[in-house]
Amino acid sequence: MIVQELRVTPVAFADPPLLNADGVHQPHVLRAVVELVVADGRGGEVTGLGECAGHAWQLDWLELVGSRLPGTSVYETGELASRVRELLSGHADGVDYGPDAPWRRWSDRTDPPESRGPAPVPAPAFDIRRVYAALEVACLDAQGQLAGVPVVDLLGGRVRDAVPYSGYLFYKWAGHPGADGESGADGDPGADEWGAALTPDGVVAQAVRMVDRYGFRSLKLKGGVFPPEEEIAALRALRAEFPRHPLRLDPNAAWSRQTALSVVGELADLLEYLEDPVAGVEDMAEVAARTTLPLATNMCVTSLEDVGPAVARGAVRIVLGDHHIWGGLRATVALGNVCRAVGWGLSAHSNSHLGISLAAMTHAAAATASLDHACDTHYPWNAAEDVVVPGALSFVDGSVPVPQGTGLGVRLDRAALDRLHARYLRLGREHRDDTAYLRRVRPGFDPTMPRW
Amino acid sequence: MIVQELRVTPVAFADPPLLNADGVHQPHVLRAVVELVVADGRGGEVTGLGECAGHAWQLDWLELVGSRLPGTSVYETGELASRVRELLSGHADGVDYGPDAPWRRWSDRTDPPESRGPAPVPAPAFDIRRVYAALEVACLDAQGQLAGVPVVDLLGGRVRDAVPYSGYLFYKWAGHPGADGESGADGDPGADEWGAALTPDGVVAQAVRMVDRYGFRSLKLKGGVFPPEEEIAALRALRAEFPRHPLRLDPNAAWSRQTALSVVGELADLLEYLEDPVAGVEDMAEVAARTTLPLATNMCVTSLEDVGPAVARGAVRIVLGDHHIWGGLRATVALGNVCRAVGWGLSAHSNSHLGISLAAMTHAAAATASLDHACDTHYPWNAAEDVVVPGALSFVDGSVPVPQGTGLGVRLDRAALDRLHARYLRLGREHRDDTAYLRRVRPGFDPTMPRW
Ligand SMILES: [Mg+2]
Ligand SMILES: [Mg+2]
Repeated sequence: MIVQELRVTPVAFADPPLLNADGVHQPHVLRAVVELVVADGRGGEVTGLGECAGHAWQLDWLELVGSRLPGTSVYETGELASRVRELLSGHADGVDYGPDAPWRRWSDRTDPPESRGPAPVPAPAFDIRRVYAALEVACLDAQGQLAGVPVVDLLGGRVRDAVPYSGYLFYKWAGHPGADGESGADGDPGADEWGAALTPDGVVAQAVRMVDRYGFRSLKLKGGVFPPEEEIAALRALRAEFPRHPLRLDPNAAWSRQTALSVVGELADLLEYLEDPVAGVEDMAEVAARTTLPLATNMCVTSLEDVGPAVARGAVRIVLGDHHIWGGLRATVALGNVCRAVGWGLSAHSNSHLGISLAAMTHAAAATASLDHACDTHYPWNAAEDVVVPGALSFVDGSVPVPQGTGLGVRLDRAALDRLHARYLRLGREHRDDTAYLRRVRPGFDPTMPRW
Repeated sequence: MIVQELRVTPVAFADPPLLNADGVHQPHVLRAVVELVVADGRGGEVTGLGECAGHAWQLDWLELVGSRLPGTSVYETGELASRVRELLSGHADGVDYGPDAPWRRWSDRTDPPESRGPAPVPAPAFDIRRVYAALEVACLDAQGQLAGVPVVDLLGGRVRDAVPYSGYLFYKWAGHPGADGESGADGDPGADEWGAALTPDGVVAQAVRMVDRYGFRSLKLKGGVFPPEEEIAALRALRAEFPRHPLRLDPNAAWSRQTALSVVGELADLLEYLEDPVAGVEDMAEVAARTTLPLATNMCVTSLEDVGPAVARGAVRIVLGDHHIWGGLRATVALGNVCRAVGWGLSAHSNSHLGISLAAMTHAAAATASLDHACDTHYPWNAAEDVVVPGALSFVDGSVPVPQGTGLGVRLDRAALDRLHARYLRLGREHRDDTAYLRRVRPGFDPTMPRW
């Protein structure tokens, strides 16, 4: 049960040009796979998997923590959390925090125009939780393999056998513009099979394809891309095509309070919930006070410390959990209890991710009794390039059955990992920048919020 | 990992005549030990231990659930929770809920005057959580033994190596009055070593003995026994003797709102917190609004459903968790997150208990980062008669180090269990009734609340 090694492998996988309030998805998502090699106490070893964002800071921090993990027990996650906090505080004994420290391996390498410099220490609390989350998932995967049980059983046991997800709709271009140095390369999705979605008809066509293929029973549109009235028109078109699907819109706080108040009445009977129409607890509370439509958030409540003020102001009625952001699978299950305690509903947030995280999200949701809304996932957009051996994950009627097998129930396809890692190295990009990418096509694009 | 058998053994252990708002502790505490026998998958078995209140209803419900457990996985605690709820709902398929059902084994037997009849179904939610809690502890003990790790590591890992407890002071008589059929029997503590404590001097003498012996660094007085001014005088005497020990008073809601408001000013500089001076969220909130003294509770917030109203009214600033009441160790750890989310402090409640529960409480508290007050325990009053093999549990400077070893880290002393079970059978009592016991000495005792 002793950790032998932490391997951190950044990867780049193909992504369609999905539009959002910040800009547009670049041709590749940067992500990192962590492998925690653990002695099984019987002369062999197991490898626990985790997955997280692949920007350079995250990689550097993981390298730093990974250098200090060997020799610890994979069960001592409380100690691990302390160690992550201590190391990322910038004051751990015997750690070189200088600009040329060996753990500063991934940042400030090859991409000066977009570089944001080396990983800052002390790391923000938000990032400390993210680093710990990737490691905790890997620990739980290893623990499950060692005990011969699925991760859901380490989280309190399953309350459902399959986890419902929503179909995550995006405005998108037909293909990448081919002007950023990533298009045309290996892995360029080019003109993908989904086609353009820039109008209500395009959004409906995308939804039909997604529901036909995956069976989703809830639909979410990523908004904040077009003026509210255009996005509302798309939702009305969705409602006409899908009379019984719960619908959601997420403008990612691209609206002003005044705009939100002027359109929320049109949405009250149309949506299951409206996600982050405006920024911050105060403005969310102002909007919430003027509508019967439930407001949801993954922006103004992202830690336990945010809960109290949001409750006090009545800012939201639903929170979207995410183990990457809340600090691991146990913290996400605990969020379910917090939501029950304060009377909030619970859904789940997603960023672009691979199958390791889909498995992790599914185990956590399967252990969370209070989850009462289908979870978000980007997975359909990225499923063509994964690092896990196919077969463990599937969508059945819009739900993902908890993977069979021990731990997370997914195993690494090392050839796929190597391929996506080689691409990461070839691209030489360190960070995600949807805004810069959109500006290559629309130089005047201004992401200042609120936009409308 | 498959459950083979659940054994439920009621026991009776000696208890001093400790006074409280309801009356006085009877000469013996009724408690139940549960043993969950689990196949280890290698031809052997492990036995997970749990402990809970020993009143007849609890025993009957455990028998009912126990008859349906064999064949399930000890890891599937989510499924176990569903099964407990279903069985205790009174509508489970194939269950005989009639008055002579075989699982109604312990109630309505021998004690007609005090009998409260057979276990009611549907069982109240409060009792469903209590039944599940005992089983969940046994499951986690077994899981830890199977995995070779302490229970704290199954709860997120330790954030402390030892858990601070408070010295739990009681008004008490010098000995049991010898008039109830239990005194004079085997196990009658008679005139115990602690002596009487009915005055400030007596309380201080008890505290000195307790601090000398166990090293407690916080002190709690169980109040609601004498008029508030007498109890406040006892606290002033404690403060004079222990200038730096945080002090607590728990009148168990024996005070009216008016009384609480008239005395709370005297307590503001004296106490760490005042526990349940009055009953219910509304009255607690009224008192809280008029004092800087933090109010704590284990009475008006006992489930997640109670949190929202208490937050909304500002009724309390500290909650006392208890895995027996909150539905297990995982739920207790989750309560820590709830407290962080709503800005409450966290302490821990205790009823009279044995070493199994002390170990369980200690593991949970060791995994709970937000625990910021020393936990309550009755253990010093009952440590002379335990069912666990001595040596695993100790108090060091007022704290209990997390037991070494796998699972809970305590093992059953079967000879001790048999002895305390034989006593339970001999006593023939089904329920706890502090009020009836006090009335044998003071026939006019009226437990109606508020008393003052
Ligand atoms: Mg969102
Ligand atoms: Mg109390």
